[in-house]
Parts: sequence; C-alpha cells; structure tokens
Amino acid sequence: NDAAGFDMNGDESTVSITVVGASGDLAKKKIFPALFALYYEGFLPKHFTIFGYARSKMTDAELRNMVSRTLTCRIDKRENCDEKMDEFLKRCFYHSGQYDSQENFAALDKKLMAHEGGRVSNRLFYLSIPPNIFIDAVRCASSSASSGNGWTRVIVEKPFGRDSESSAAMTKSLKQYLKEDQIFRIDHYLGKELVENLSVLRFSNLIFEPLWSRQYIRNVQLIFSEDFGTEGRGGYFDHYGIIRDIMQNHLLQILALFAMETPVSLDAEDTRNEKVKVLRSMRPLRLEDVVTGQYKSHTKGGVSYPAYTDDKTVSKDSLTPTFAAAALFIDNARWDGVPFLMKAGKALHTRRTEIRVQFRHVPGNLYNRNFGTDLDRATNELVLRVQPDEAIYLKINNKVPGLGMRLDRSHLNLHYAARYSKEIPDAYERLLLDAIEGERRLFIRSDELDAAWALFTPLLKELEEKKIIPEYYPYGSRGPVGAHYLAARYNVRWGDLGVEQ
Amino acid sequence: NDAAGFDMNGDESTVSITVVGASGDLAKKKIFPALFALYYEGFLPKHFTIFGYARSKMTDAELRNMVSRTLTCRIDKRENCDEKMDEFLKRCFYHSGQYDSQENFAALDKKLMAHEGGRVSNRLFYLSIPPNIFIDAVRCASSSASSGNGWTRVIVEKPFGRDSESSAAMTKSLKQYLKEDQIFRIDHYLGKELVENLSVLRFSNLIFEPLWSRQYIRNVQLIFSEDFGTEGRGGYFDHYGIIRDIMQNHLLQILALFAMETPVSLDAEDTRNEKVKVLRSMRPLRLEDVVTGQYKSHTKGGVSYPAYTDDKTVSKDSLTPTFAAAALFIDNARWDGVPFLMKAGKALHTRRTEIRVQFRHVPGNLYNRNFGTDLDRATNELVLRVQPDEAIYLKINNKVPGLGMRLDRSHLNLHYAARYSKEIPDAYERLLLDAIEGERRLFIRSDELDAAWALFTPLLKELEEKKIIPEYYPYGSRGPVGAHYLAARYNVRWGDLGVEQ
Amino acid sequence: NDAAGFDMNGDESTVSITVVGASGDLAKKKIFPALFALYYEGFLPKHFTIFGYARSKMTDAELRNMVSRTLTCRIDKRENCDEKMDEFLKRCFYHSGQYDSQENFAALDKKLMAHEGGRVSNRLFYLSIPPNIFIDAVRCASSSASSGNGWTRVIVEKPFGRDSESSAAMTKSLKQYLKEDQIFRIDHYLGKELVENLSVLRFSNLIFEPLWSRQYIRNVQLIFSEDFGTEGRGGYFDHYGIIRDIMQNHLLQILALFAMETPVSLDAEDTRNEKVKVLRSMRPLRLEDVVTGQYKSHTKGGVSYPAYTDDKTVSKDSLTPTFAAAALFIDNARWDGVPFLMKAGKALHTRRTEIRVQFRHVPGNLYNRNFGTDLDRATNELVLRVQPDEAIYLKINNKVPGLGMRLDRSHLNLHYAARYSKEIPDAYERLLLDAIEGERRLFIRSDELDAAWALFTPLLKELEEKKIIPEYYPYGSRGPVGAHYLAARYNVRWGDLGVEQ
Amino acid sequence: NDAAGFDMNGDESTVSITVVGASGDLAKKKIFPALFALYYEGFLPKHFTIFGYARSKMTDAELRNMVSRTLTCRIDKRENCDEKMDEFLKRCFYHSGQYDSQENFAALDKKLMAHEGGRVSNRLFYLSIPPNIFIDAVRCASSSASSGNGWTRVIVEKPFGRDSESSAAMTKSLKQYLKEDQIFRIDHYLGKELVENLSVLRFSNLIFEPLWSRQYIRNVQLIFSEDFGTEGRGGYFDHYGIIRDIMQNHLLQILALFAMETPVSLDAEDTRNEKVKVLRSMRPLRLEDVVTGQYKSHTKGGVSYPAYTDDKTVSKDSLTPTFAAAALFIDNARWDGVPFLMKAGKALHTRRTEIRVQFRHVPGNLYNRNFGTDLDRATNELVLRVQPDEAIYLKINNKVPGLGMRLDRSHLNLHYAARYSKEIPDAYERLLLDAIEGERRLFIRSDELDAAWALFTPLLKELEEKKIIPEYYPYGSRGPVGAHYLAARYNVRWGDLGVEQ
Repeated sequence: NDAAGFDMNGDESTVSITVVGASGDLAKKKIFPALFALYYEGFLPKHFTIFGYARSKMTDAELRNMVSRTLTCRIDKRENCDEKMDEFLKRCFYHSGQYDSQENFAALDKKLMAHEGGRVSNRLFYLSIPPNIFIDAVRCASSSASSGNGWTRVIVEKPFGRDSESSAAMTKSLKQYLKEDQIFRIDHYLGKELVENLSVLRFSNLIFEPLWSRQYIRNVQLIFSEDFGTEGRGGYFDHYGIIRDIMQNHLLQILALFAMETPVSLDAEDTRNEKVKVLRSMRPLRLEDVVTGQYKSHTKGGVSYPAYTDDKTVSKDSLTPTFAAAALFIDNARWDGVPFLMKAGKALHTRRTEIRVQFRHVPGNLYNRNFGTDLDRATNELVLRVQPDEAIYLKINNKVPGLGMRLDRSHLNLHYAARYSKEIPDAYERLLLDAIEGERRLFIRSDELDAAWALFTPLLKELEEKKIIPEYYPYGSRGPVGAHYLAARYNVRWGDLGVEQ
Repeated sequence: NDAAGFDMNGDESTVSITVVGASGDLAKKKIFPALFALYYEGFLPKHFTIFGYARSKMTDAELRNMVSRTLTCRIDKRENCDEKMDEFLKRCFYHSGQYDSQENFAALDKKLMAHEGGRVSNRLFYLSIPPNIFIDAVRCASSSASSGNGWTRVIVEKPFGRDSESSAAMTKSLKQYLKEDQIFRIDHYLGKELVENLSVLRFSNLIFEPLWSRQYIRNVQLIFSEDFGTEGRGGYFDHYGIIRDIMQNHLLQILALFAMETPVSLDAEDTRNEKVKVLRSMRPLRLEDVVTGQYKSHTKGGVSYPAYTDDKTVSKDSLTPTFAAAALFIDNARWDGVPFLMKAGKALHTRRTEIRVQFRHVPGNLYNRNFGTDLDRATNELVLRVQPDEAIYLKINNKVPGLGMRLDRSHLNLHYAARYSKEIPDAYERLLLDAIEGERRLFIRSDELDAAWALFTPLLKELEEKKIIPEYYPYGSRGPVGAHYLAARYNVRWGDLGVEQ
Repeated sequence: NDAAGFDMNGDESTVSITVVGASGDLAKKKIFPALFALYYEGFLPKHFTIFGYARSKMTDAELRNMVSRTLTCRIDKRENCDEKMDEFLKRCFYHSGQYDSQENFAALDKKLMAHEGGRVSNRLFYLSIPPNIFIDAVRCASSSASSGNGWTRVIVEKPFGRDSESSAAMTKSLKQYLKEDQIFRIDHYLGKELVENLSVLRFSNLIFEPLWSRQYIRNVQLIFSEDFGTEGRGGYFDHYGIIRDIMQNHLLQILALFAMETPVSLDAEDTRNEKVKVLRSMRPLRLEDVVTGQYKSHTKGGVSYPAYTDDKTVSKDSLTPTFAAAALFIDNARWDGVPFLMKAGKALHTRRTEIRVQFRHVPGNLYNRNFGTDLDRATNELVLRVQPDEAIYLKINNKVPGLGMRLDRSHLNLHYAARYSKEIPDAYERLLLDAIEGERRLFIRSDELDAAWALFTPLLKELEEKKIIPEYYPYGSRGPVGAHYLAARYNVRWGDLGVEQ
Repeated sequence: NDAAGFDMNGDESTVSITVVGASGDLAKKKIFPALFALYYEGFLPKHFTIFGYARSKMTDAELRNMVSRTLTCRIDKRENCDEKMDEFLKRCFYHSGQYDSQENFAALDKKLMAHEGGRVSNRLFYLSIPPNIFIDAVRCASSSASSGNGWTRVIVEKPFGRDSESSAAMTKSLKQYLKEDQIFRIDHYLGKELVENLSVLRFSNLIFEPLWSRQYIRNVQLIFSEDFGTEGRGGYFDHYGIIRDIMQNHLLQILALFAMETPVSLDAEDTRNEKVKVLRSMRPLRLEDVVTGQYKSHTKGGVSYPAYTDDKTVSKDSLTPTFAAAALFIDNARWDGVPFLMKAGKALHTRRTEIRVQFRHVPGNLYNRNFGTDLDRATNELVLRVQPDEAIYLKINNKVPGLGMRLDRSHLNLHYAARYSKEIPDAYERLLLDAIEGERRLFIRSDELDAAWALFTPLLKELEEKKIIPEYYPYGSRGPVGAHYLAARYNVRWGDLGVEQ
C-alpha cells in the first residue's frame, strides 16, 4: 500500500486526486495551480485524474474555466504552456455533492472507477473545507470512495482543533475512519524552500553542527509579519487568533525542525520522532512570557488604515490578538536556558518570515574596544529568510579595508534569487507531490499535534478566561512595545527591528 | 623614544624618511608611491622630509622627476591630485653617497638637521639595497646619521640571510648598531588587507574560533602562484629559489598568523610571542615532504614561453626551484596531525595567493547518499583570497531549490570589491605608516626569524647538497604532478585545482 | 491498568506471581530467592501469593521444602531471618499442570482467585521454560488464567529465537495473546548494578558527557569471560553458541545503553526509543570482523580440563563457538569510526564482565617523552566492572611523588564494596520488582529485539552455512590469538589482557 | 654556564652552597635538612661543600652541632642514617661575616676556592636574610665571591617588596649585580608535590583538558588556612599582612599554573611565559571584591586563645588582616566570567591548602528531581589537596546500589599516602635541587613578579589609605562571615565549608 509499491510511470496504476471544497479560495489559488505545476514539470504519474468536489452545481467545463484563470507557467519555462494547460484541464472533472452524503461520495466513487479503468487505484482526497464538516467528509470518503486495491490518503488542513481537547477529539474521530498513515496533516510552512533546507544546512555541513547549541547560541527568533490586516475577512480569524493561526503550528513546526536532535535517518518517522521529542522537552507557555496585541486604525500620508475591530466580520469588542510575542524554552541538554522568541503579527510595517539565530559574545574579546559599547550589535547572527526573497546570510565582523583598524559587520551571503535562476516552487507543490509519493516527512503526526497543543492550551485558556486585553498598535507599525520588554527580560534584542534593518 | 611619545601633528617634532637605494626598482614602484599615498590621505605628520640616498649622482630635481613618474592618485579620490603631488615632491630631496661611507652619511645628517630646524628629530631609514652592503649601511647610518633627540628606526628588506647561520650572523651584526626595537624587518605580505583581517575574523567572531582546530579542520593550504617567470631578471632569484623567496617568509608568516594561539592582547609583542610559539611547535621540513619544480619552455597558441634556464641571468644548469610544494606539521594540541600544505610557483597558469581551509567530513552524515562517492568535494571550505581581487568565501552544502532533494555547494560570499567601494591600500602604505608610528605588529622579530629558518635550513641544505633535480613543468601549466602525489600522501586534494575552480 | 494505578500497600489489590517451570534450576537458584529478598526488604505488596507451576507432582510442602534450601538472608541484615522465611514460605504454593493445557491453567486460575479473595487481581507469570513450549504456555495463561480486573504480565526469558525470522515469528505469536505492554522480556544483565548506574554516570555528571563521543573516545570494549566451561550441560548451549548466548543480548544491550543519545526523559519508552535508534545506526556484523573460538582440553598442575566437545551433551564434531570477539560500528555523528569491541568466552582464565572505555591520546602531548614508546599504555581509561566485585575506576597519568619528573598511571577509584557496606541486590530482584511495578525500562521491547537480530543474523547464518571452524584455545587460557589480530586491525589493544592486569 | 654543561658526577666540577643567614629559623628547619635529604638520596654531586654564613661567631663544629639537631632521615629509609649524617656534617662549614662586607665575602671566596681545589667552581648562595640587607649581600657576594669559571646563582626569598614600586626597585638593584638567569626567586609552594602535579594532570590526561574552561568550570577556589596565629612572632607579619604573605605569591602562583594556556614546551621559559600571560589577563583587584578579617581572642573548652593584637610584637591598634578572601577574574577566552576565589587565613579551625574546581550543572538534567532543590550540592567537583595529606579526588554522582533509584555523591579518589608508600619530599628539597641543576621552572621571573604586584598593589594601597577595618573572627573559627557574602555575590559556595566537609 505504500509508496515503495507505487509505480510512478507504470501502466498499471492510477492516481485520482479529489479536491473536496473545490470552489474555495485555497483550491483556486493554490491547489489547482500546484497540481498543474506538477503536471507541467512531469511529476504526476501517467494515469491521473483530478476531481473537484463541492456543493455548488457546476459542469466540468465550468470547473475547467474557473481553474484555468489561476493557472500560470513558471516565468523561466514558458514553453508549450498553453498546450500543457489544455492537456491538464482535460483531466480535470467536477462532481457536485454534499460533504456528509455517503450517496454522493458513492457516486463519485463510480466516476473515479470509470476513469481508473481497472488499473490499481490510488486515491488522494484533499479536504479544503471548514472544520465543522471535516469529519463527515472523512467518514463519507472513507466508507464510500476508498480505493479497493491501492492506497487512500487524505490531506487535511488546519485548524486542527482549538486546543488539546478539541484536537484530540478530532484525531479520535479521524482514526475511526483512517489509519495514521493515511492522514496527511498539512502545514504549508513545512513545504517552504528554506524550511526544507534547514535540515540540509545543519546536517550536511560540518561547520554548523558544532555551533548549534546553548554553548554558542544566545537566542533564536522566529518572526512572522504581514503588512496587511484581515481586510474584511476576519470571521474565521477572529475565532482563532494569531497564536493558533501562526504560532502554535507554523512557527512551532519550524522551531521543532530547527532545534531537534539529529534523526537516526531522514525517513519520515525518524524525523517526526525527533520533532516530538523536542516538543515534549519544552515548557508550556506561561502568561507572563507572552505579549498580545491588536492593531488599531492609523492614518499615514493621508491614507487611513482600519482597526481590526473595524472589520465587519469581527465583533466590535473582540479581544482576539492579531499580534503575539512569546518566549519559549527547551529543557534539554542542548538548549537549556536559550530563549526561543516567537513573534507573529498582522498589519505590521513589513511582510517577512525569518529565523534569526543570534550567537553569543566572543569571550575575552580582544577587539572589544573597537566596537564601543553596543556589544549586542557585534555578535554573529545567522538569518534564514523564509519569505519573501529567500536568503541565508551570516553576519560576521571583519576589518574595514584601509589603514587603521576599524571593524565592521559584513554579510556572508547566499541570496537564492541571485544564485539560482530557477523559480522556487510553491510549498503546495512539494506537499502534494509528497502526499502522492507517500513521503510523510513534512506532514504532522498525531503525537506531534498533541505535543504542540499541550504547550499552548493552558496559555490560550488563561488568555480567554481572564479576558486579557491586547496592547493596541497602529496599523502598519512595528507592533506593541511590550514585545521589546518581553525580549529584554531574557536579554534579547529583536533582530528584525535593529538600526541596521 | 616610542610612538607613545610621538606627537603626530605637533610643531615640535619631525620625521625624516631616508630611502637608501632610492634609484632601485622597489623604491620607484612601491616606496615613493606609498609615501605619497600616505601624504595624500593625511597620514604623514606636519613636518616631514623625504630623502633619496644612492650612489648615482642626481639632483633633487632629477629625483623628483624620477619619482613623479610613478605617483598616482587613488581612483576614487582624484581631487586635487596634481596639487598634492607638487607639494609632496617639494619635500623630496636627494643625497648621493656610498653605502659604506660614514662621511657621506655624516653629510646626510647635516642636511637632515637643517630640515629638522631644531625640532625633535625622528628618523626612518628604509634600506632598499642588496644584502652584501646591508650591514655597512646600517653601521654608517647608525653611527653618523642617528637622531640625537628622537627615535631612529631602520626598515630592512628580505633576504634575511640564506639559512640559519647567515641569518643569525646578520642579526648579530645588526644588533651591534641597533637595538631590537629599532629594527623593522618587512614582509610585505603581512601588510595585505586579508592577512590583516585574518586575526579579526578569528578573534572577533564567535563562529570561527570553535572550528579553528584539528577537531574540525582537515587541512590548510597556503597557495601562491604567479603567471610569469623571471623574465630576464632571474639573477637574484637564482641565488635564493622559490622556497626562500616565498615560502620561508611570506607563506610561513601567514601560516603563523593563521595557526597561532590567541594572544594576550593585540600589542605587537604579544602577537609576535604567539607567532614564535607556533613556529617553534613545528617540525623542520623533511626532504620527503617537499616537491620542487622548475618551469621549462612551452608553446601555446603559437606563442613560445621560455624555460627558466633560458633566462640570460641564470646559469644553464641551474637546479634552483621555481616551484615548491611542502607539507608542514604543527605538533601542538590544536593542530596535531593536521597537514598544512604550502605551494608556491612561478610561470603557472594563474596568479593567485590564497589560504584554503578544508573542513572535515560530517560524521555519520545523513546526506551521504546525495553526494555520490566524491566526498572530498562536499566538505565545507573557507577560502581567503589574498590577491588578486580580495574575497572571503565559505563553501557550504545546501539544497537546490525545487522539488526533490538534490544537494549543491554554494558560497557564503564576501567579495571586497562588491562590498567596499574604497580602493584597498597597498601593503607598503600600511607598513610604512606602522614604522613611522612605531607599531611593530606586522614586522618580524629576530626570534621569529630564527624559528622560521630553523624549519627550513636542514631541507635547503639537503636539497643543495644532494643536488636534487626539480620536476620540470611547462611554462603556464598547473605545476608539477608531484604536488598532487605529495598532497595525496596526506589525504589532501589541492583546493585550487579542482573541477570547480 | 498501569503501575500508576497500582496501590502498593492497599488492602484492595493483590499480586499473584506464578513461576511457570518452578522445578527448574533458574527458579530455584534465582527466582524464589529474589522473591524472598524482595519480601524481606519490604518491597512486596501486602497481599501477595506465589505459585509454583510445573509438570511434576509436588505438594505445597514439598515446594516449600525445595525452595527453602536456596533462600538466604543478606549478610548485612540477618535479623529475624528465619521468622521472615517462614512467613514467606507460607505464601508459596504449588500447582501441577501441563504447559499446554488450558484446563490446568483454568484450575490454577481458580486457586488464584481463591487467594485473591475478591480484591483487584494482578497477575505476573514468570515463564522459566524452554522455548519450544513457550507459546503454548502463553496461550494457556492468557486465555485461562488472566486477571479479570487488574493487570496480567508475563516475564519471558531468552532465547528469543535463533535469528531474525524465528524471533519475529515468536513475537508474532506472543502478540496474538498479549499486548506489547504485557510482555516483559528479561535480560538479567540490565538489572546489574553497574549497568543501571551507567545512565546515572553519563547523565547526572557534567564531566562525562562532553567526553562521551568519537572526539575523545578511541574505542569501547565490552568483555565477558567465564572461567568454566559447559561442564556437562552443554546441550542447550550447543544449539545457540556464545554469540547468541551472550553477545547478541547481554553485551549488545549494554552497548546500546552505553552509546545511546540522551533520552527525552527517564521513562521506559523514551529510553527504549533511544536504544532502538542506536541499534538501527549500527552496521550488521561482517564475517571478517568476527573471530570465533572453541576451548580444547588442557592439563595444568596435574589437573586435566576437558575440551568443549568432551561434554557428553555436545556432539563430537560441534563447531559451536564457545568464544567470540567482534568489532562493531555505529554510523552516527557521535560514534562514527569508533570501534566497539566485544569479547565473550567460556573456559577462560578469569571470570569477569566489564566495560572499558579507552580515550584518545593527548594531542601534541608535552609529556610524550616521559612515557617512552608505548603510548597505548598511557591513555586514560574508564573501567566499569560489572562483575564480580563491582567497581568504577578511571586511569589517569600523574606524577610519581618525589624529586624528578616521572609519570605514572594511577586510578581514580570507586570500589563499591569499600564505599557501600550494603550488599548489592541480585539483578533478578530488581527486575522482578520492576515487573510488579510496571516499570519497563529494563525490559526489551519488540523493536529492540528486531534491531538486535538484524545486526547478528547475517553473520550467524554465514558462520553456519560456511561451517567456519573456530580457533581452538586451551581451557583456562586467555582465548584465541585471533582476538588480538582483530583488535589490532582497528588499532585497539584489549584492556583486560595488558601487563598491568 | 648552564645546567647543560654541568657534569653532576664528574671529577671536574664542584658545587658550593652558601646559606647566608645560617643561624636563622628557616635555615635550621628547612634548608639544612633539605640539603641533607638531597645528600642522603644521592642527588648532590660528588664534590660539594656547604657553608653557613652569618654575623654571629661560631666554629664549624658549633654549626654542625646546631645543624645536626634538625636533620632526620625519611621514615621509610632509615638505613645508614647516622653514618650518612656524619659524612654530610663533615662537609658543612661556617664563615662569620657582615652581610654588607665585601671583605668578609672575599674571605669566604678564599675558603670556597680552597675547597674547590682547582675544579670548575659552581656557587649557589641561598639568601635567608631580611629584605633590608638583601641587596647588600647580593652586591658583596656577586663582586667578591662569584665563581670565576663556573656559574653563580642566588636563591632569594620573599618578601619581594611590598608593592609594585618597592618590588621594581629591588629587581632593579638585583639586576645591577646579577643577570636574570642567576636569580632564583623561591616560592616554596611551587615545590609542593600537588602543585607540581597540576600540569601533569592537565596536560598528560585527555580527559581533563576539554573540561578546563569556562564552558564546564563554574568557579575555582584556592584555599589556605592555618589553625594557629602569629604566636608571639607577628612582627614581620604585621608589616605585610595575609594578602602579601600568602595571596599575592603562593595562591596567585598556584592560580597561574592552574589557569595558564598550554606552554609550547615544558621548558622553564615557556612555562613562565604562559604564567605571565595569564597574570596579565587578570583584572587588578577592586576593594569591593575583597573581604579582610583579623582574629580576636576566643575561649573554648576552658582554653583561651589570644587575639592577633595580643601578640606582643604587634601594635595594639593594628589593622593588618590575618584573613582575606578575594574574587579574581581572568579576561581571556578560556576563563571569561569564571570567578576565581581565594581565601587565606590564620587562626582558623583547620589547617589546609587546597584547590577546588566546581563544575557547572548538567544542562537539562534528567535526574534533577532526584536531587531535590540544593543543586549546588550535586555538581561535580575536583579537589586537589596540597596539604596536609596530599590527595586528588573527583566528586561524582552515582546511583546508590540497591533497589530504587537514589543518587549519591561518591569520590573517585587518589589518596597519595594510600597509593604511594614513599614519603613525599619537602618542597625545599625540590627547589634546592632545581637551583643546583639550573632548572628555573619553579622559580619566579621578574616579569611574573611585576604582573603579580600589578594586580594587588592598588588594592593594598586602598586598604591602607582608607584604613579599612577588618572583620573580626574568633581564633579557631571558620573566619569572617563576609567571605560567604562575597562568594554569594558571584554565585559561589565555599567548598571547604559545606555540610559534607
């Protein structure tokens, strides 16, 4: 049933990909384009079929028309693009049905079987639907549209519950219908190029591993910022808030990959074992180690930017944080005492996701006098910029060329756009391909999810029960000042807000 | 008498710089231009005088004319250049005399006194003359033209003898007339920007020091290559050979700076103490750890390039090496077992001086299979390119962006020309300025010189006594193959001759 | 069902321990005495019952009589010994039955219930019976004598199969009747005091962990030797041989504990996860990395010692090894390139089990000349002597007191008998107590067993298929010389056969 | 002139040892006995003569009589003791003279020459006289009693001045008459067995060096305590105080040996270079990092112990400290941030000199819960007990044998008396022998002395100028409480005052 037995180019097997929730935004913007990109690059098997599934009535032609509007070809590979699009669209179909109707899924099953034409049938369901109808769809797909002789896999999307209890309940429900190895919980940040590269950097270069510990690393910062707000679509967000939306999953996943021990192999289970271990070594967040914020309206250059609560889909007295900063700690031998700072926010002055590793000061530094007093400015820093404009750079001190001895910070720099002319594929392409190939490394296992929720649930409950009021910050600003005080408590300076930046 | 008491801008003191051997090549090409550059940049004190001293008869005007032809202004600072040149030349004078005539130096002394006009007199003699008249000149300058109330310093140039004995004899002679702190033995490689930067990189960055040992470094390579031969001026070279001309001084000095322990301070004596220590920890070279070569004639693209022995100033049966490669070892706790490979040659395919640090393989590398078999290609490497086109880069493995997991070597790169727009000053500027300011860090102390000769003298004697025949290599080639076999013996691959280069 | 819910001193629950194979040697010599020791020390719960189960007919009184002959009290705690013995024996009973009879086990069940008297029933079966009747007994015990409202656990003894296949088959059979957490595979070496202490030493002392890697450790030796042969009872042994009997389990288990990464906690599953990881990082043994031996007869001081094949229960042409030495390697970042040498043998000159850790040479050792040439003698060594006479000692170099500078190897010594007056409990006491308390840390999980067999199975097959002839060594000698050649190949010197020993 | 040229057993050379100040306490108690011990053990050359020199009139016989009363033979080597004593005394002579009389020294010279009998003459002067007549004696000995054809060496004793200025003045005076390599400044603590062993331990054992840095060492304690006061002879002491008497020399010397970098060789100059380096890396002591004390009278068990100021030779209002504790810091890469605590006192509860190295806590310690809260109690500690009863021990945590998991601190122990039956020679024997053999490693060079004074002089001046009142502590107590507060400020707990001790 596994990838090992899957003959990518064979005549004997097929893959059917059903996008459940086909008319949704994500499906249109990300899933269909990613499938097309995979097709264009030759990564899809010979026999494949794509089905859109949703409640609305639509013909195959209407689906194709809808899908075609978001397909693009890589800038660097425009050749035969139209032709390829046509071929791709011919293999896309639509099936209308309710998400909780076994009958409708059974009808889908029939269509799929027709397309499979007697070959080994492998089926991937991508559930791009709201959490409340999730389990119903799994139940129906599993019981009425599972493959008879190949594999059946289901990609599910966050939110994976709101806390430990609801998440555990959802997992329990899923496991009624699916085995662990059929469930592919997606966190699209794990598909990002630089996140993928993180393990390569650590484990294939001699020079990083010795530095990767409390002995040399002073702190680690995981920063996510968006330069726009909810923009009238805050309904879903308001129910979850930035901590659940970004921190507990995306940033925590990156942290786990960053901080985990060397896995025994690169196999999915070994990597996920190590991620679980590091999550289990962490202390649950305490209220005093968290700062929350919410953006307020702001007028700049004559333009007026709305407050979060100006969003029509958000209640006027919402206390949902649109910004949060937190200090986390890993109580193991490698990281004991090293603060891991997270920061995530909407409606900030910039758009950026990055990992910043600040190294310790040089002990007994001979060159101290050359730096003046601001020692925090002179330590080495490794920055992995996940988006936009992927880059890795290492800040080092060197001598300014010329007479005299003046020190300066330079960057040992690897800028992807400059080095690699190829366009970097979207995270969804990688993840879809992995799901098709049965590669589970970048998907989240149940016990990982449990461990992640265990860290955040007490905090989230306390925030809500105590109705903690967020610190208000202007739309487009650098966020609440509280984040600085939090950092200062652990002797940290945010790397993204320095003078140099 | 020291720099501390020297008032750079005061009215009360003067500096007189006498270039002994003023009509020589080095004086014209390097010393006078460097003095002008210092003047142009405002580094010379208010009251200074420059004297050329040589045997030939010349007027001040003739000297000025000669000198003026080699002066240039920095490309990035052409402003007022002509004006500045005129001012500078007005302060240049000429005095004709024999190098061994106390009388002639006494006459110079009078002229100097006249220029000093009763101020505190500080005098710097730059001896740019052949070794056989060296000591005479020192004797005369010291006894007849020393400063009465300020300091007197003498810059001397290589060759500092041909072996331990002759070097010791020369030092002994020098010390009859000068104290150690008056002697400034110049090795212009120590004035190179990247060599200066070496200590900054190591000691002001946390991330390099932990890696700087046998535990992480597999080997270190010090490479010097010139793409031209002796070109009709091999007379002096033939007496010394490439080992004395390049290895025993330039490359060994760089090695000592690279490998020394952290000095207790950045003061000259502390740094030089550490350099002596590391030299004393090295084993003298053995014949079997050295490969010598000599270039032979070669015709390429219709152009014919001469053999070394085609040089009219070289004897037809000369065995003098124009190329040498050697493996050195430092028997201390930091470097035990790490081969330090040196390579120096003339008439090679390229012009380059660089330090290459090859790191060890990642133990238990998870990614081994991704590299195929050529593991030597995949280790990290730090390259410090001293000339031309100064640069620092660090070769790391990273993931090629895109689907699938393919590894690739990238460079974390710091390219000086790209980063720093200012022109990098010539090594002579730095060294002259240091001598004027009494900064001895970049000059070679007697015990350093002794330690350096102790390493090379037995080898040099054996080479000459046994009349070892060099391996012949074509002009413009990559040098003798023997260098590869030598490297292979210590499990090293020359970094400058890889496929990538 | 777990230990957490088990009320040790409560009135409400009972533990019934059934020793299946009660008339066997192990039962008499180890199991009953260990149970008594636990009782004497107050570790057994208030309500407990012990049942002997075997095929022979016996009364309770006969069992008690048989058992009583092997009970002893700790030398240091003789108080009330007889009284305690009487009390203990009163709680021992006998039940005769076939090992494959559900009926007989059902009868046992009734007796157990009677003793339990309506309390919560917890049942531990200790299977001290040959492998061929193993599964039958498990089946019967499980189906006819399981606890209705408490836990049921089964302790099983080696051999756990003869190779990967037979072991997997046995595991599969066991799992038909028991869940993983009911199976307690015993390796009594894991209950040894010093093996238990191994993790404490590594993880609770700062000074050991930094040294615990390839960087400082040159090799690790795991040595088991007995000073007697099979002595007429070689039948079972001949079927398995020393590699299966000692190496693949006892020594490999110690190795795994020694070499594993830090577990995320001290919980059983976390420790066992790490043990599996390190076993999976090892290369399967190759024939060329193994030396086998068999003892031959030897006459010393007029006494004649028999050859292995003189044992009546062993076939005359048996090639079964009574000695083996092997080199193993762990391909992970910590241990890459460090040889782990194992040696196990019967009929050798001494009785001993120990772990020897030989450290690397001091790089650039200043004191080299003081040691003369035999550098292998002067490196540091950590010795953990498991039996007899438990001790930890660290060999260090120090100066011999007195004038002059002469170096000497001293021992930083911790000798248990000298330090701790208390008698050290037998391994079986610890393991039985752990099984009662549900502590699984020292028992072997299925995946551990699989990983262990995966390392040894190809070798064992090759040895048998190729009928490799063992090297013969005299009874009472130091074993085959081949073990030295094997060690020498990896630049190792056996620590137990040095001059000092 | 050097040891290299000294033929220990030859017929051709002699050594004459003149003890200047022969009637003093030190001469009687230490110097003559040490010379006899060297003779007894066969370490003195064939031809040697010993002269006592002092102002009092005495015959050779009287000197011999006086000397004989303090000679003893090693407990373990009583053989022929009386005989040997007689032979030794026959070679002892006396010469009466003023310390500032060239004439008297010239007369000595004649006697020495007579004894030398035309052989190569080597002369050692041991100046055991007060500082005020020091220089005079050096002058006279140098000008009137120097060897004509061999070496002349002078052993001088502390005090070497009272501060930087007086020490520099004394050095300057000495250098008028002696070259640096003729001066042997003695610090008898450097001759102690365990101090000598310190370098052996560090540099010949792989396992210590990696731990020898800020990364693993939390603090270092240098502790000197005496259980008696000045006992009526406080005159000299009162002028100097405990800081000058013990800290600035004995303890600081030990600290330098402990903390220095690896020397390039074991030669005297290389070791002393490293000692100077580490002293120069230290910060001068600040008043706030020092606590001073003075003992007051105390009655215990009916016995009354006097106050310091009860000493008749001490002024009633003396503020001279008889106790001091200080925190020192070394600003280099190895020791940055590690407190080095010194403590020295008279009239304390015990007599002891020891070095205690406290290691850091285990990061992320798995066993934390087993220790309860007093984490300071559970870290590793290395103790070098210099006197009395030399020993090295390493405190480690291990498991208490027995069921359950209880941790305990044990000692990996090397107790000299138990391991080495030979009596350990007195420090003076070693140092006298070294002086005879020209081995300078254990003597203090001028620049070392300068560096040591530079650290203490500002503090000593401030203490005296501000008339800082010492904290009074009872005779026989554990010293002032202030020492605990000082330690606590740097998060240190004195290792010698713990519950365990």
